[in-house]
Amino acid sequence: MLLVGELINASRKSVAAAIETQDKDFIQNLAKDQFENGAAYIDVNAGVFLEKETEYLKWLVEIVQEAIDAPCCIDSPNPKAIEAALSVHKGTAMINSISMEKDRLEDLLTVVAGTDLKVVTLCMDDAGMPKTADERVVIAEKLVDCLNKNSVPMDNIYVDPLVQPIATDVNFGIEFLAAIERIMAGFEGIHTICGLSNISFGLPERKFLNQLFVVMAMAKGLDAAIIDPLDKRMVANILAADALRGKDEYCRKYLGAFRAEKLKF
Amino acid sequence: MLLVGELINASRKSVAAAIETQDKDFIQNLAKDQFENGAAYIDVNAGVFLEKETEYLKWLVEIVQEAIDAPCCIDSPNPKAIEAALSVHKGTAMINSISMEKDRLEDLLTVVAGTDLKVVTLCMDDAGMPKTADERVVIAEKLVDCLNKNSVPMDNIYVDPLVQPIATDVNFGIEFLAAIERIMAGFEGIHTICGLSNISFGLPERKFLNQLFVVMAMAKGLDAAIIDPLDKRMVANILAADALRGKDEYCRKYLGAFRAEKLKF
Repeated sequence: MLLVGELINASRKSVAAAIETQDKDFIQNLAKDQFENGAAYIDVNAGVFLEKETEYLKWLVEIVQEAIDAPCCIDSPNPKAIEAALSVHKGTAMINSISMEKDRLEDLLTVVAGTDLKVVTLCMDDAGMPKTADERVVIAEKLVDCLNKNSVPMDNIYVDPLVQPIATDVNFGIEFLAAIERIMAGFEGIHTICGLSNISFGLPERKFLNQLFVVMAMAKGLDAAIIDPLDKRMVANILAADALRGKDEYCRKYLGAFRAEKLKF
Repeated sequence: MLLVGELINASRKSVAAAIETQDKDFIQNLAKDQFENGAAYIDVNAGVFLEKETEYLKWLVEIVQEAIDAPCCIDSPNPKAIEAALSVHKGTAMINSISMEKDRLEDLLTVVAGTDLKVVTLCMDDAGMPKTADERVVIAEKLVDCLNKNSVPMDNIYVDPLVQPIATDVNFGIEFLAAIERIMAGFEGIHTICGLSNISFGLPERKFLNQLFVVMAMAKGLDAAIIDPLDKRMVANILAADALRGKDEYCRKYLGAFRAEKLKF
């Protein structure tokens, strides 16, 4: 399971404040904490700053990679901001995200075409958010086709079928899970990724639901997630689910986590 | 999700002692506790007593049903013991279990043929325990065919694909999960059931693994489980997973459990 640490996001007040005051230590500690708790990519998002997004995103990439030896997940729909961030990024970044929304697609395709960038690909088009597994698969097919034609290989594509709240529609969870399975089975070598928190919107004990939904999605084949790596039970559940689905040889990582007391809550 | 309470099993020392001393209160309290925590069936097992099994099983059914208004899951491979237990059982019992092992199959078929009994059907034959999903599906096909021919309808069949430890073979979890999905998709109206604890044999933090594996199996369609209903997190996880997979309209049961503080650990 590939984990993307979601915490360096300017929609969080403390992060926005740290960005505005250029509080390097705060951001770098957040990067280190996430990295040490299993994040393979560190998401960086400065979207709330609008005009200053480009400048701030570039700064975030620089100071994150000064602190840790890991790639970033550059989280913006703005091609200019992404290109500025990529100009200083070391190693292979992940771009979060492309979609079938016409404007977004065309602009971002020119950024990712022919590169070795990893690309998060939202199952969304100009008609809005899909509701069923069928709708998601149809959009995924178009996106994958488009990316492949622009020389983005299957192994660099991370399809996000988009989690929606079960409090809005009781079938939103099962339709998402079915989409994960069909996308993983339908496109050899592809990946699926998601954030979890929307699933529990409007319900109590949200973390509890999110921590279980990721495990259900893993049973269906999900192989990447955008999470808070400081949520100990979330990380432990993911580690256990990998062992339970045969992705942890000799349960080595699970046993390591046990010895490091990471299965105590 | 249908829950079978597993605690009245003579392989547990306290239960064996209560059976031998005919400690009715102890057994009845165990039945009540399980029933109040969501068990739809109460498993009764007196297998360790060999010659006295028939007498004890009958006694267990009588006193359990004196205490609560719920059917039993009669847990024995011995047709005489099962028939004695059925002779005093009120309502529709579940029989645990039949398999493709030749001796067991023939004897038990005569008990269940043409009845409305629920039948737990182990994916096991004289060649032993299956390892792969394929092996499980082949045995399940034979068992279902055999039961259907003996007038046991699909809706009364609970196939147990048999959980085996991931510490023995890292693929045992994923093969089990694949079997659940294929059996649920392959036989319309059928059910799947299992115990969980074998999955974690030989590993630390066993309950933690069992509590997550059931959720993974539910993502694949598992609709019944033989569990300890007093394991609060297990029951809460199952409740949450039902909401997450669209089996809890308006999340009513989940919200009820929250209000009853059953999501606090």
